[in-house]
Amino acid sequence: MKESKNLNDLIEALTVLPGIGRKSAQRMAYKLIRSNKEKTLKLSEKLLNITTNISNCKICGIYLDNEDVEAQTSDECHLCIKENRDNTKICVTESPADVYTIDSSTDYKGYYFVLAGNLSPLDGRGPIEIGIKRLKTRLEKGNINELILATSTTIEGEATAHYVQQIASTYNIKVSRIAFGIPLNGEIGYLDSETISHAFNERKVL
Amino acid sequence: MKESKNLNDLIEALTVLPGIGRKSAQRMAYKLIRSNKEKTLKLSEKLLNITTNISNCKICGIYLDNEDVEAQTSDECHLCIKENRDNTKICVTESPADVYTIDSSTDYKGYYFVLAGNLSPLDGRGPIEIGIKRLKTRLEKGNINELILATSTTIEGEATAHYVQQIASTYNIKVSRIAFGIPLNGEIGYLDSETISHAFNERKVL
Repeated sequence: MKESKNLNDLIEALTVLPGIGRKSAQRMAYKLIRSNKEKTLKLSEKLLNITTNISNCKICGIYLDNEDVEAQTSDECHLCIKENRDNTKICVTESPADVYTIDSSTDYKGYYFVLAGNLSPLDGRGPIEIGIKRLKTRLEKGNINELILATSTTIEGEATAHYVQQIASTYNIKVSRIAFGIPLNGEIGYLDSETISHAFNERKVL
Repeated sequence: MKESKNLNDLIEALTVLPGIGRKSAQRMAYKLIRSNKEKTLKLSEKLLNITTNISNCKICGIYLDNEDVEAQTSDECHLCIKENRDNTKICVTESPADVYTIDSSTDYKGYYFVLAGNLSPLDGRGPIEIGIKRLKTRLEKGNINELILATSTTIEGEATAHYVQQIASTYNIKVSRIAFGIPLNGEIGYLDSETISHAFNERKVL
């Protein structure tokens, strides 16, 4: 049976979303056709919007609206110049999303630095691509006495953490790594053996 | 911390998708920003496209591209006029998506009729809204000797099936309902008790 081409095109386009396969995309497409057009138009518009109106802060790397960037008096974004933040600490993450997550979950009040992903030579991402030069410029500005590594525990995340640690040590900056182990409220029975083994080995004496 | 407004707008717009809450929408938005702009633009365009270029067949109710509708020589769509289909059977579904699912999963070769959803007085959907008049017109054309009810087992789906059955009986058309029970390859232990109870009561003597 011949399906609508416009519908098929949308279904295929929806599979670009993370975690969405053909089946879920189909369900979404049918839902969108049935639901009110305003919402679909709005989604279409907002998607278009982010392709043109978002850029990264040249210093810390978080996402900024272009209109906010234009309103800035220097290269520093609202987060880079916040005066009531502790400018002796800097937290390095692998994505801007992690900055928002950490900032809303912790009482950390230092600065942030976002890498453009993790080191992954196979995908063509070396030190230059992930923004190590920008990090060096930031560290050279001085005044920082602790660099907190908040990249993930994947192989790439660990490699990146190791690399950044070496760089920070050339500036005599103390480096720390966020703690890994059993998540709070997590049931041990449902966790992967690697996490459990790590948590066991890294046990703390009370 | 101030998040990008454009990003926030997109996150909110994405929650219109079925099964997507704020957290998943956030993940999708961040993925889209990182991935290549072409794909995001394509998704935006395809969404815009379905709001203007899709309509329902005036007879059977499946989704059609407007350009295909314009190319038609009558009100009948490619499915309504297919000559090698069995025109004595008609399968009634509650959505166009179900037509594609049934057609690709079975060897059914009759015609289809799509209602505009199920009867749901609380949501303002009565017989007129779901297209019962259109169904009567279809049945009056004659030649049909079996109407297969493929609405779902929800209360609304059952009510609709019952209603359509009564209408079909006034035209002396045999009515059948698709079988409900344990899904094939389904583990009984994971099924809801209603399904099990139904399957048990409707057991077939071998």
